[in-house]
Amino acid sequence: MLILGLDPSLSCTGWGVIRAEGNRLTHIANGQVKTDAKASLAERLVQIDAALAEVIAAHRPQAAAVEDVFVNANPQSTLKLGQARGVVLLAAAKAGLPVHEYAARLVKKSVVGTGGADKSQVQAMLKILLPGAKPAGADAADALAVAITHAHHR
Amino acid sequence: MLILGLDPSLSCTGWGVIRAEGNRLTHIANGQVKTDAKASLAERLVQIDAALAEVIAAHRPQAAAVEDVFVNANPQSTLKLGQARGVVLLAAAKAGLPVHEYAARLVKKSVVGTGGADKSQVQAMLKILLPGAKPAGADAADALAVAITHAHHR
Repeated sequence: MLILGLDPSLSCTGWGVIRAEGNRLTHIANGQVKTDAKASLAERLVQIDAALAEVIAAHRPQAAAVEDVFVNANPQSTLKLGQARGVVLLAAAKAGLPVHEYAARLVKKSVVGTGGADKSQVQAMLKILLPGAKPAGADAADALAVAITHAHHR
Repeated sequence: MLILGLDPSLSCTGWGVIRAEGNRLTHIANGQVKTDAKASLAERLVQIDAALAEVIAAHRPQAAAVEDVFVNANPQSTLKLGQARGVVLLAAAKAGLPVHEYAARLVKKSVVGTGGADKSQVQAMLKILLPGAKPAGADAADALAVAITHAHHR
């Protein structure tokens, strides 16, 4: 089964595709969708939508997984993230993928073994769990981590 | 010019189409997109997207207007609203409409003449500015109000 992990944000949305066969995981691809900060909000959402449509068409995943949102103390940040997240969830659901949401603690626990793991521990474990994967950045790494979480909990 | 006003929310998104010719305004149509509260978040976003695509295909507006968000004190509510708002902005922008955002105070000032107007004043003025319009509910009325705002400020 091909799983698409997604880490939404308005400026840089991470994505990662893995194959899960039994308990064997293989890295397929990952990347980050950076939007033009000078473009309007609506245009940036169109950029995210178009890029994810390409990713889905290229890799044909069978399920999508997204981390539950860490609600920021700054309501404007929460709103921005929410707008990007809505577009990301829509892109997956419109393509016919079941969309699964996982709490951040569960993602860390699935990848590192403890819900209190920090980002560097998650990234170190990714190298072990997905040999050969070179995440395009921290957001792509988070997307691969949530894809792994779905592989373990599906 | 046909203007589509939009008032996004996850449970009930209002929309309204008006025609603006010089300073003459005509009501064309309005409605509300209610989503199934038992459906998943991703499915509800698909429902909003599909309904707005139908509205846009049926009325072929030339511009869209959306109220700037009142950021709720409750971050979970802000996140929910943001997710719906992202999908609404995307639906308009993907259809090729320029998307304009207006502050809530400006919407009230455009419709009632004062930024401190309450909802009942806005609804009373709508009847005068758009004779014959029967808003499907409070969200459709808000959508018509933001469409009028765009007609005045374009």
